[in-house]
Amino acid sequence: MAKIIECIPNFSEGRNEEVINGLVEVAKSVAGVTLLDYSPDESHNRTVVTLVGDDKGIQEVAFQLVKYASENIDMTKHEGGHPRMGATDVVPFVPIKDATMEECIEISKAVAKRINDELDIPIFLYEESASAPQRVNLAKVRKGQFEGMPEKLKEEEWAPDYGERKIHPTAGITAVGARMPLVAFNVNLDTDDVTIAKKIAKAVRGSSGGYKYCKGIGLMLDDRNIAQVSMNMVNFEKLPLYRTFETIRFEAARYGVNIIGSEVIGLTPAKALVDTAEYYLQIEDFDYSKQVIENHIIG
Amino acid sequence: MAKIIECIPNFSEGRNEEVINGLVEVAKSVAGVTLLDYSPDESHNRTVVTLVGDDKGIQEVAFQLVKYASENIDMTKHEGGHPRMGATDVVPFVPIKDATMEECIEISKAVAKRINDELDIPIFLYEESASAPQRVNLAKVRKGQFEGMPEKLKEEEWAPDYGERKIHPTAGITAVGARMPLVAFNVNLDTDDVTIAKKIAKAVRGSSGGYKYCKGIGLMLDDRNIAQVSMNMVNFEKLPLYRTFETIRFEAARYGVNIIGSEVIGLTPAKALVDTAEYYLQIEDFDYSKQVIENHIIG
Repeated sequence: MAKIIECIPNFSEGRNEEVINGLVEVAKSVAGVTLLDYSPDESHNRTVVTLVGDDKGIQEVAFQLVKYASENIDMTKHEGGHPRMGATDVVPFVPIKDATMEECIEISKAVAKRINDELDIPIFLYEESASAPQRVNLAKVRKGQFEGMPEKLKEEEWAPDYGERKIHPTAGITAVGARMPLVAFNVNLDTDDVTIAKKIAKAVRGSSGGYKYCKGIGLMLDDRNIAQVSMNMVNFEKLPLYRTFETIRFEAARYGVNIIGSEVIGLTPAKALVDTAEYYLQIEDFDYSKQVIENHIIG
Repeated sequence: MAKIIECIPNFSEGRNEEVINGLVEVAKSVAGVTLLDYSPDESHNRTVVTLVGDDKGIQEVAFQLVKYASENIDMTKHEGGHPRMGATDVVPFVPIKDATMEECIEISKAVAKRINDELDIPIFLYEESASAPQRVNLAKVRKGQFEGMPEKLKEEEWAPDYGERKIHPTAGITAVGARMPLVAFNVNLDTDDVTIAKKIAKAVRGSSGGYKYCKGIGLMLDDRNIAQVSMNMVNFEKLPLYRTFETIRFEAARYGVNIIGSEVIGLTPAKALVDTAEYYLQIEDFDYSKQVIENHIIG
């Protein structure tokens, strides 16, 4: 059965159609890889590409995209609203099916080494692939951005994981790593008081003492005049969706507020929802990989 | 692309390891066939085997398994909590990929004929393969069970579809047919009173006025000393699992009984559980085919 790995590289170009189309062409050119989505953002001047493939194909397509970006994006001329440090800013590998986190870490290191060997772009490993605790969080790795990187690389603790202590003159530096799939999960409340959603977000998110694998904010949905807890679930196996949902339910209850619905934005692995069904139906001893028929048919 | 057909034969042996292992060996011996799962159940004294294969292989493996069962299971000595009428009780063929229901009906008839020709076991065709409306439903076909079959076969309307009006002395009679995928779903209750499980089964199953696409019985799990509502969900899209589960919850409540767990036996399509998660999380506007990442990888 073929392993399936997702890769979601972010490129520092969201305006020049020729370059964006070039990225898409490269994304479609590698056997064993499917382009699921690409989202250019003009204001961020950034394009997020979503690919799935087998373990060989995903490494090849990631390298070829980084190569294309290094030849067609000049960071010395880049402007945009999103923090960035390289022509290819970040390359995460995500285990989807029959692939372990360990395999994705290995893949991230192999691709990182090849990028540095063949393109002379230095690499920070991040998230699960990080070589030190301060390199896990992308925001910390990227701090200083493209313009500040030459100085940052001179600091004792910020030698690249691959390459010398100097950026590529036009392609900058790239973060490569492995992480769990992320589920964008929002919960809607029957209140127009956004402070309640903010308090609940604070209760559930890791950064303020809640669940380690939940990031979240409270916001208003102006068109519906309701408050929402908007979250990224960054490890649905360690923090299942239902647990956050039920926590929001009992936190909301203290304000006399009820959940009126939820949203899953974009893609989710089936397992995130199957795990949740297992909880509510109280299924005993369910074996996801064996009992879900699609797992035997793919590949 | 090869057609993929699923076959889920049920055998009346769930205790004798030698016979169960023998079935597994036969299941693994046919080219073009993958053994996905086998679940022996001691209390039911029954083993459900799940196979997928191409149209040729699936017919061969089904026949070889029925042959092995006829040589190694003696129904005159069989005891168990589940209704049964043959050493091989039932052999359904299910279209999974690039195969039509019509093809599965043809396959079921070809296998039924071969079983009768070579093993002298009479056959009822059932479900989509049935030759009369009263033969569609397996429970009606099986009514009377092994012990009552000699009398039943003498009734005008119960001549076997293949074979004479007499059972095989030790292997009984077998139902062969084609059907849509089903989910075997059991709900466990915190009572040792089987009559409560029986009353609840009556409330939820279509045959006694409940949900049309639910079949169910109440039985005891002797090893755990609890009662169970044992069901086949024959169309999880028209009757989602959660609806049956919540109905059992409120029916049990009138007896002061609670649900303590459930079981999904064998394989399930992911969608049956994702639909259930959607319900409990109150997800708005979820698009299964677009938003579940695995769906972009199949085919």
